Amino acid sequence: MIDGQARVTGRLELVLNVERPGMLHAAVARSTVPHARIKEIDVSAARRVPGVREVVTGADVLAMDGIRPRFGPVLRDQPILALDRVRYVGEPVVAIAADDPEAAAEAAFAVAVDYEELPGVFVGSEAIEESAPLLHEPAEGVGPTFPDIVLNLGAGHNVCNHFKIRKGDVDAALDGAAHVFEDDFTTPVVQHVALEPHVCVVEIDASGRMTCWDTTQTPHVIVKELGELLGLTASQVRVIVPSLGGAYGGKCYTKIEPLTAMLALRTGRPVKLTLTREEEFVTVTKHASEFRLTTGIDDDGRIVARRTRCLFNTGAYADIGPRLIKNGGYGSPGPYAIPNVWVDSYAVYTNLPPAGAFRGYGQQQAAWAYETQMDAIADRLGIDPLELRTMNLLGPDDVYHTGEPMHDCRFRELLAEVVDGVGWSAESEPVRSGSRVRAKGFACAIKGTVTPSVSTATVRMNEDGSLNVLTSSVEMGQGLKTVLADIACARLGVARDRVHVSGVDTAITPYDQQTSSSRSTYCMGNAVLDAIGELSEALRRLAARQLGADPALLEVGGGEVRAPDGRAAAFGELVRGAARGNLIGHGRFHTEGGLDSETGQGVASAHWHQTAGAAEVEVDLETGSVEILRFHTSTYAGRVVNRTLAELQSEGNVAFGVGQALFEEMDFDGGQLRGANLGEYQVVSFDDMPRRLKVSFMEGGERADVHGLGETALPAVCPAIGNAVSRAIGARITELPFTPERVLEMVRQSEAVAVGPGS
Amino acid sequence: MIDGQARVTGRLELVLNVERPGMLHAAVARSTVPHARIKEIDVSAARRVPGVREVVTGADVLAMDGIRPRFGPVLRDQPILALDRVRYVGEPVVAIAADDPEAAAEAAFAVAVDYEELPGVFVGSEAIEESAPLLHEPAEGVGPTFPDIVLNLGAGHNVCNHFKIRKGDVDAALDGAAHVFEDDFTTPVVQHVALEPHVCVVEIDASGRMTCWDTTQTPHVIVKELGELLGLTASQVRVIVPSLGGAYGGKCYTKIEPLTAMLALRTGRPVKLTLTREEEFVTVTKHASEFRLTTGIDDDGRIVARRTRCLFNTGAYADIGPRLIKNGGYGSPGPYAIPNVWVDSYAVYTNLPPAGAFRGYGQQQAAWAYETQMDAIADRLGIDPLELRTMNLLGPDDVYHTGEPMHDCRFRELLAEVVDGVGWSAESEPVRSGSRVRAKGFACAIKGTVTPSVSTATVRMNEDGSLNVLTSSVEMGQGLKTVLADIACARLGVARDRVHVSGVDTAITPYDQQTSSSRSTYCMGNAVLDAIGELSEALRRLAARQLGADPALLEVGGGEVRAPDGRAAAFGELVRGAARGNLIGHGRFHTEGGLDSETGQGVASAHWHQTAGAAEVEVDLETGSVEILRFHTSTYAGRVVNRTLAELQSEGNVAFGVGQALFEEMDFDGGQLRGANLGEYQVVSFDDMPRRLKVSFMEGGERADVHGLGETALPAVCPAIGNAVSRAIGARITELPFTPERVLEMVRQSEAVAVGPGS
Repeated sequence: MIDGQARVTGRLELVLNVERPGMLHAAVARSTVPHARIKEIDVSAARRVPGVREVVTGADVLAMDGIRPRFGPVLRDQPILALDRVRYVGEPVVAIAADDPEAAAEAAFAVAVDYEELPGVFVGSEAIEESAPLLHEPAEGVGPTFPDIVLNLGAGHNVCNHFKIRKGDVDAALDGAAHVFEDDFTTPVVQHVALEPHVCVVEIDASGRMTCWDTTQTPHVIVKELGELLGLTASQVRVIVPSLGGAYGGKCYTKIEPLTAMLALRTGRPVKLTLTREEEFVTVTKHASEFRLTTGIDDDGRIVARRTRCLFNTGAYADIGPRLIKNGGYGSPGPYAIPNVWVDSYAVYTNLPPAGAFRGYGQQQAAWAYETQMDAIADRLGIDPLELRTMNLLGPDDVYHTGEPMHDCRFRELLAEVVDGVGWSAESEPVRSGSRVRAKGFACAIKGTVTPSVSTATVRMNEDGSLNVLTSSVEMGQGLKTVLADIACARLGVARDRVHVSGVDTAITPYDQQTSSSRSTYCMGNAVLDAIGELSEALRRLAARQLGADPALLEVGGGEVRAPDGRAAAFGELVRGAARGNLIGHGRFHTEGGLDSETGQGVASAHWHQTAGAAEVEVDLETGSVEILRFHTSTYAGRVVNRTLAELQSEGNVAFGVGQALFEEMDFDGGQLRGANLGEYQVVSFDDMPRRLKVSFMEGGERADVHGLGETALPAVCPAIGNAVSRAIGARITELPFTPERVLEMVRQSEAVAVGPGS
Repeated sequence: MIDGQARVTGRLELVLNVERPGMLHAAVARSTVPHARIKEIDVSAARRVPGVREVVTGADVLAMDGIRPRFGPVLRDQPILALDRVRYVGEPVVAIAADDPEAAAEAAFAVAVDYEELPGVFVGSEAIEESAPLLHEPAEGVGPTFPDIVLNLGAGHNVCNHFKIRKGDVDAALDGAAHVFEDDFTTPVVQHVALEPHVCVVEIDASGRMTCWDTTQTPHVIVKELGELLGLTASQVRVIVPSLGGAYGGKCYTKIEPLTAMLALRTGRPVKLTLTREEEFVTVTKHASEFRLTTGIDDDGRIVARRTRCLFNTGAYADIGPRLIKNGGYGSPGPYAIPNVWVDSYAVYTNLPPAGAFRGYGQQQAAWAYETQMDAIADRLGIDPLELRTMNLLGPDDVYHTGEPMHDCRFRELLAEVVDGVGWSAESEPVRSGSRVRAKGFACAIKGTVTPSVSTATVRMNEDGSLNVLTSSVEMGQGLKTVLADIACARLGVARDRVHVSGVDTAITPYDQQTSSSRSTYCMGNAVLDAIGELSEALRRLAARQLGADPALLEVGGGEVRAPDGRAAAFGELVRGAARGNLIGHGRFHTEGGLDSETGQGVASAHWHQTAGAAEVEVDLETGSVEILRFHTSTYAGRVVNRTLAELQSEGNVAFGVGQALFEEMDFDGGQLRGANLGEYQVVSFDDMPRRLKVSFMEGGERADVHGLGETALPAVCPAIGNAVSRAIGARITELPFTPERVLEMVRQSEAVAVGPGS
């Protein structure tokens, strides 16, 4: 990994380390109540703290010229500072800028707010009831990032968007099905817990141009959103992103940038805001979900219809929720060929912190539901869950629920590999030894990627034949720079230490849509190859002149351009001969697609990610604890660019899945979050990981092109483990996480049923 | 000016303000003697200073792997730290890195060096005598920046390069001339005195890649030189240059970068070196010169032959001296049509600090000589100095001494304008009033620009139609960013606040040769236009599709692409429609040329800069003080891009000329510099400026293209003032500066002559 040593020795460039001359430090006083009208804010004590330079309330923001008071990538519903109301515990109410972080924090603590509390609602299925408190009046308007998005607003109480798929006649098919199963599944709010918190430094120069050093996965989106917020053009907003210390979706779209920019604007000084871990928990989360799947099966075990209702709890503000529900929605029927499909997917406002993008992007919640239901159906029908899947899985000639033809479906082989990996057989029964039971389970999953999508790249060859690759893709620990360097090196045949991949500086580096959605190796990798194509053409023209050869017959590679007769010109020699200082190639890769807003038909994803996972677990029936003995994850990778990094991505996905399966959950009590710290909120440790972990990739295929694999393995992990645990305890787990308490409770219930009343 | 407000409010991005985590501060212990063998260096006291992390001597550098001990753009003759010898007062001997600048300075002060002193030589004409101490054994080799330069080494004792012009038969022509005049002219060592000192921060990452924040005019040269020094490729060295606080040639080529990089390499920490003002004086200077001009004139007043011998005192190390003597040499016969020319121009080592590029680049020294001699000849022949020039000046059909045809010569008009501006007439005599005498003088000058030369630029249009211009040209207060924005705005018809011009980051911004030689508006301006051409083609293709029109008929401008029928598509709309995020155009501008090393024939300059200046002065014969009453400077500008900035450049040139005419001189006594501070070393103040200053430009011409004007006006300033003063005092001034003491001395001598001996 190109920056591996810097990363582990603490020498990586991070926004945390950015210092600017005259820089102030920000802190935020946040709401202590989940839902209330603000009666009065007393900032007098805050102003008196020595070193405090600025204290701002929502009313102050409203009075400012040249700044919109609300932001949001899809709906502009989120105030920079609470205006008349607060809607979740942790909502920013007063912003402070001070000479040092301690003074700012002290001032934030000194802010006193008088609230008139309002009833709150915290669960999606409760929030859509007409009796629930309404969180928002109609929003100010559609946000800048997705101005063309078709929203289905007003589809219900507190619903900020509704995504639909309408395919076939689901009612008739369910009526005619041999078996109909209706089951509910839930997943909790969890946290991304990137090692690095959100940090933002904003500096506005004398001419009004803004520079923002930002922990963001979406630098060009930030340019657009800050530009909209402040009335600046893309050329006036510069976003610089060094490497991130993890992101996992939590650093997509505007978060703390508007508040930091507002303070910089008011103070005329550079301002830095660094979130505490506690603030991280209330800044962005993963959507809690409630899924209801109604599945009709015919006598042969074929799925004839599936209706899904997906409630995504998007918290108090929309963030990317209105868009995420599309992916969660189109993913909810699973990778199965189903003739009749009906999907209703909702983003629902509640009095929780805003939920946003999270590794798996709605499709992890969906896979928990559909893969748990597959096992539940197999159980109830008494058939092999592998066979049930195999007969229903999408194959090469099938179309997806969105109507798009599927190509290159490899789910059956992926599943076959992982069940073999853990030694599953249809006949294998749980093995009990004392209080401990061992059992196996598996799951597969499908994931789409953001579509349409565009990446552009520039490659620059220097006079010594070394190469600079310029992109706006974000290195966040996933190894992007290494992979792009590998791609360039392989194509040109230059050594890796002669290739440098840029960081992001939106004033200079070419456009990339975003670093998310497992798209970078695929999209930016192809953009880099396209740029190298243009560069190679230039090299070929120069070599043709030098060698007196037909450019069409020249081959570019191995650090040189070769003629058929064996003569060759080295890259550096050609660049020097061109007398340009450097040679530049520019490239682009884009995908197209889109879905009809009424039927969900069209092209949902330019590219489908495929995975399967299988687990062997040991459950202690006396303590409820679950140990994962083995896990085998397999991903259809197309072509693996860098095996070590690919394996680390899959391992990371398994780690995320294990944590979310066994214990990760943000614990809200009446909207108050308990344990917003890493002492109480558990993330996965090496001790929790499977004792034996096997990561494999399927390569080749129709295109033999790279697929995305940054999140691919994740959606199958929780249901594979859950299905194993359910088999071990003889009861169906449908809620994440299955903590020891929850497992024990289910064991007791199932024993009570087995023994029967009064025994 | 785009950054004017930031510049005057102290909010400009400067290397001075760069802080890196864990950064150490450097200081340098310097030689206190002009020439000596180093017997012993005692660093024990330096090491004991609290906070000191590293103390390095030349021997330590020699023992390091992977770093060359010497550097230099043309000759690798300059040690990072003195090895066995020191060659000037101020030469770095020991380098310190410490936690803070104070500790570093204290440690540098605590270094004790035992020297065995050697005889020194300080004047070029003395250094070339065989009896003078020899400064250098043959140099290690030709440096990285100009590997192809043809050096005439060994042309004499202490000569590090010899440039020649051989045209016609000078001896015969002088023999046959009606009059032959041989005169000597000198100019002293002076300082650039940029407000901002040299500052360099170097950080080496875990993989060995180097980032260098640097006050340099030649960022891509630094990439190359540091790469050579450390064995790194261009992709492994990143040079970032924010704006400079003045440069004037003093920030060209490696200066403090090798030492800073060496410390960063040894300490594994970022290191910052900020020179004190005193250190500035011994880091780089303007070449002192001694010119001898032998000029043959026929009966009609036509120059039939000129022989020049130009000695440039390049100090102890070559820096760019071996190359500067070419420009000083080809410029030395002046802008006159002379059939027989012989030039010998030498770079001579002495025991003074290294001299390097300085505004005017050798041609200012030359103009002092040839324009002073023109008046001296006219005096002696009793003809009008304007007429003498007019009959000899290069005209449209002439060839230069280098054999290249001249185009578009405007010297006569420039001269006519300025002499008219100060009210000169051939009959006007000095006017005496009490002890004060008023008189007028004038001069013209020619200046070449670095050739061959290449600039490349990228322009990027965003989805809102705003524009980012990416270049590696350095903003150093000359207004480069403003001018490039103006050029782009004018061509595309977009508002200036929608255009952003990048700073320099060699890992990202495209190649530019250097920011020097008055080349940027011309070369980079044309590269930007070339890039806009490519962008416009892309816009035209997009618009053609959208409007259903023939792309060849579409016009790009006014923020849109227009069809002949009046329909139009706005830029932003077209970029959004392209679904690329942004549209990119790349452009290049280059010039070709070169001179034969034996005859100096070929193409010296792709572009000739032309100027004239005229002064009216008042000299107080009792005090020797000179007041400049009027100055009129006129430059052939071709096309003025930004009038305010152009005028400021010419005003700055006059200021430089006035200071150098009247008082600027570095005062060495046996190699020891006196008054290396701004209390004693005088730079020009507003009080010294001409009471009335008129700046004008000649526009239009054959190409109507922009000419360079960053230095153009300067070479004529000193001789114009000098000729006026000579006329006022009735004696010929041939040495710069003409301080009151020198003027008074000449007044006394000329009075003594006038009165005659024994009167």
